[in-house]
Amino acid sequence: MMMVSEQFLGALESLCTVRRGDAVEALDPGFCAGNLGAGIVALPRIAGEVAAIVGLCRAHKVSIVPHGGRTGLAGAGASVPGQLILDLKSLNRIGEPDPDTGTISVEAGATLQDVQEACASHGLTPGIDLAARGTATIGGMIATNAGGMEAFRCGVMRHRVLGLEAVLPDGSLLSDMTRVSKANEGLDIKQLLVGAEGRLGIITGAVLKLDALPGATSTALVSFERAASAVEAFHHLQPQGRLLRAEIMWRAYADTVAQDVGLSDLVSPFPGSVLVLFEHAGATQEEAQTVQQEALLPLMEIGTIEHAIIAQNDRQASDFWRLREESWAVERRWPGGYWYDVSVPLSALDQYVRKLEEDLMAIAGNAHFSCMGHLGDGNLHITVSAPAGNPLDKTLVDAAVFSRLKAMGGSFSAEHGIGLEKMRALAAYGDPAKLAAARAVKQALDPDNLMNPGKVLA
Amino acid sequence: MMMVSEQFLGALESLCTVRRGDAVEALDPGFCAGNLGAGIVALPRIAGEVAAIVGLCRAHKVSIVPHGGRTGLAGAGASVPGQLILDLKSLNRIGEPDPDTGTISVEAGATLQDVQEACASHGLTPGIDLAARGTATIGGMIATNAGGMEAFRCGVMRHRVLGLEAVLPDGSLLSDMTRVSKANEGLDIKQLLVGAEGRLGIITGAVLKLDALPGATSTALVSFERAASAVEAFHHLQPQGRLLRAEIMWRAYADTVAQDVGLSDLVSPFPGSVLVLFEHAGATQEEAQTVQQEALLPLMEIGTIEHAIIAQNDRQASDFWRLREESWAVERRWPGGYWYDVSVPLSALDQYVRKLEEDLMAIAGNAHFSCMGHLGDGNLHITVSAPAGNPLDKTLVDAAVFSRLKAMGGSFSAEHGIGLEKMRALAAYGDPAKLAAARAVKQALDPDNLMNPGKVLA
Repeated sequence: MMMVSEQFLGALESLCTVRRGDAVEALDPGFCAGNLGAGIVALPRIAGEVAAIVGLCRAHKVSIVPHGGRTGLAGAGASVPGQLILDLKSLNRIGEPDPDTGTISVEAGATLQDVQEACASHGLTPGIDLAARGTATIGGMIATNAGGMEAFRCGVMRHRVLGLEAVLPDGSLLSDMTRVSKANEGLDIKQLLVGAEGRLGIITGAVLKLDALPGATSTALVSFERAASAVEAFHHLQPQGRLLRAEIMWRAYADTVAQDVGLSDLVSPFPGSVLVLFEHAGATQEEAQTVQQEALLPLMEIGTIEHAIIAQNDRQASDFWRLREESWAVERRWPGGYWYDVSVPLSALDQYVRKLEEDLMAIAGNAHFSCMGHLGDGNLHITVSAPAGNPLDKTLVDAAVFSRLKAMGGSFSAEHGIGLEKMRALAAYGDPAKLAAARAVKQALDPDNLMNPGKVLA
Repeated sequence: MMMVSEQFLGALESLCTVRRGDAVEALDPGFCAGNLGAGIVALPRIAGEVAAIVGLCRAHKVSIVPHGGRTGLAGAGASVPGQLILDLKSLNRIGEPDPDTGTISVEAGATLQDVQEACASHGLTPGIDLAARGTATIGGMIATNAGGMEAFRCGVMRHRVLGLEAVLPDGSLLSDMTRVSKANEGLDIKQLLVGAEGRLGIITGAVLKLDALPGATSTALVSFERAASAVEAFHHLQPQGRLLRAEIMWRAYADTVAQDVGLSDLVSPFPGSVLVLFEHAGATQEEAQTVQQEALLPLMEIGTIEHAIIAQNDRQASDFWRLREESWAVERRWPGGYWYDVSVPLSALDQYVRKLEEDLMAIAGNAHFSCMGHLGDGNLHITVSAPAGNPLDKTLVDAAVFSRLKAMGGSFSAEHGIGLEKMRALAAYGDPAKLAAARAVKQALDPDNLMNPGKVLA
C-alpha cells in the first residue's frame, strides 16, 4: 500500500490543520464508504493555504481528492492511501447578500442551507435547493453542477455561478469573481471547472446570483392516472409563473416511503399511477393556497388530475415533502439496489418509464423498480433492487436504463455527476469527439494528473 | 502577401461552393471592414462538409475564420489573405419546435429572426433577442455568447443552449445534442465552445431551450431624474414577474437618436437624465397595458418616476423602440467614436456613469459621451466621440472606461466578445491564471492554431 512520506506530512502540517488515523476514522465518510480511504485530511482555512497545499502536493507527486459535504452519490470523493483528502469545510465564510446587485460571495465550504438562511434574512434565495442542503457545500455543488428541485425555473448550479475562485493544478489562484451576468472575457475557464468533479482544480469561492424569495408557499399532493397527464399538467401550470416546484413519484416509490415513515394513510386514498408534489408561491400562505387551488381546479374538472389535497398547514406540507425527501427508505426496504440518475425529455417520460419497467420485468420478474424525480426537468432517480439471493445482472440493468436515452436527447447522467459510478456509462454513451477533447483539456491543465485521478474519464 | 495554393483551392472546390474575387467583393462585409480580407469564402451545406473543409485546411495549414451574419462588433470575423472564410449561412435548417420538450434543433447559420418566427407559430420563443436579429446567426450568437434584451429574465445564449454540434480543430465532429437541462457527462466541452469566438472549432448546430411566448406586450417610455431611480424602479418591477424588457438610455443618447429619426417631439417633453423603455406582458394588449399602468403608477406617486407614456398602439410602441435600436445614429452624428460594451453591478451603475462622464470631460471637454444599454444586466453600450480634428487619446479613454470595473465585479467585455477590439483590455484586466489556462486549452485543442488565429488572446 502506497503511503505519503513523513517529510510530506511534516510540510503539510506546517501549512494547515491535518487529521490522521483515529481523527479520520471518527469522521462520517458520507454516502460512499471509500471517501476517507486516504486516511489523511488537510483542512485549509483560506484559499492561500489551498494554493500552498497544491504546490506541496505537486512537489511530492501526491494526488488530491477534494471534499465538500461528502454527500456525493457517484463516488467522486473516494480516496485511497497515498492520496490527500483536501477538505474545504473550514473555508465557509459567507458574505453579506447584496440585494442591489442580487449577488452573494461565499467560500466553497459553506453549506447550501447556511447560504439559504443568510439570503432569506434579506428576502433572497440562491435559487437552488436539494434534500442534502444541510450538508452539501457550495463548492461541491459547483464541482458537480448540482440541479435539485428549482432547476426548471432557476437553472442548474452553472446558471447560479457568476464568479468563481479556484486553485488550478499548477498551484495558481484563478480569481474571476465577477458579479454580473454578462461577462465574456475570452475562453470561460470557470465554465470548465463547473461540473469537473475536482479534476481541474480546487474551487475555493464563488459569487452566486440571487433571486427574490417567494413570500409564502402552498403545497399540494396530486395524483394522475399516468405520467403523461402529469407532464400535461406541468405544461399547463408552469407558464402561469407561480409554480415553484413539481416533484414526481411513481406509485411503488411513494408507497415504499409512506410505509417507512408512517404515512400510508395519506397516500393510499390517491388513485392513479403517479403522485406529484406541486408548490405554488403567494404573498401570504392564504394567497398561495388560493393561487394553487385556482390553478389546479381546471385540471381536476377536465379529468387530467385524479385527486388532490392542498396542505392546510405547515405540518401537513412537511408530511408531503417527507414522501419526496426520505428516498433512503427504498434502500432500507430493498438494500443493495442499483441507483440511477437520468434525464428524459418530457415528451418521452411516460413511455420511457413504462418501457423500462417492461424491460426490467423481462430481466427479473421479481425485481423492485422505484422511480421519482424532478418533473420539470424530466430528471428521474431510479432504483432497481434485486430480490434477496438473486442478484440482478448490472450490465443488463444498465443497458435497460441507459440504451434509449441518447437517441431521444436525454442523459444517462443528470445531476449527480460521473464519479466512479458512471465511468463505464460515459465511455459507452459519451460522444467520442467530446471525450477526446476532455482528455486533451485534462492533460493540458493537469499534466501530472494530481487532481482527483481515476475518476470520470479513463 | 501570403495566398492559399491553387491545389488547396481545387480541393476546396470539390468539397463545397467557393466564392472568390468579384463574388467576394460583392458581399456585405458587415460591421468590420476587414471581415472579407481573406478574399475566399467556403459555403458548406452540411456539417460533414465543414468537417471535410477543416481536414483539408489542416493538411494545407490554412487557418479558418468562421462567419455567421457578420454582425459582430469586436472584429472576431476579420480575415487576411492566406486564410479561409468559412461561411455557415447555408447551414440554415430549422427543425420543428417541440412544445412538449420546449426545445428546437437548428443549424448554425439560421438567423435569430427565422428561429424566432418558427417558434412564434407554436407560441414559443428562444428567449433571446437583439437588434441584429434579422442578420445575426445562431452559430455566431453561440460563439460570442450573445446577451441582448431578455438576458436578465431568460439568461444569456449559454443558458439557452442545451445541445451543441461542432467540428473540432482536429476535424472530428462533436455531437452533444442533448434536449434536457440536466446533463452532466464529464467535462462539459460545449461550454468551452460557447463564447470561444471560433477559436476552438466551428459550431454547426444546436438544440435551444424554448420558453412560452408572452401573449401580448405593452411598452412604456419612462424618465427618471437619475439612473439610481431607474435601478430602484427595476428592483421594484422585476419581482412582479411581468416585466419582459428594461432598456436604459441616457439623455445625450436619446436626444441624438430622436433627432436622427425625427422623434425629438416625443423625447423633449420628458424631464430627467435617463429614459427607460419598460415592456410588460399580458394575455391581451389591453391587459398588458393595465398591468403596466398598475405597475408604474405607485412609482409615479412616490416620485421615483418623473414622467411616463404607455404606447397606445403598435406604431407608437415601434417609435419607442426605434430610439433604442437606431443606435447607429450616434455614429452618423459623431463618426469614428470609440465603442464600449461593459457590465456594471446595478448598485454602482449611477455612480459609474457619473464618474466616467467627469473623467472624460477631464480628458477632453468637448468629447461627446453617449450611453445606453440593458438596465437589468447593468450592461452599458458607451460611445465616446472625438470632436473633429481633435482625436482623443484612446489609451486614456480606455482607462477611464475600464479601470474601475474589475474592483466592483463588473466586466470590460459584456456581450460583444473580445475579437480584435478588446485584446489589449483582456491582457490588462483578465485574470492571469485564467489567461494561462485559456492558452493551455487553446494549445491542447488547436495545436496548429488553425481556428481564428490572432484573435482574443495573444
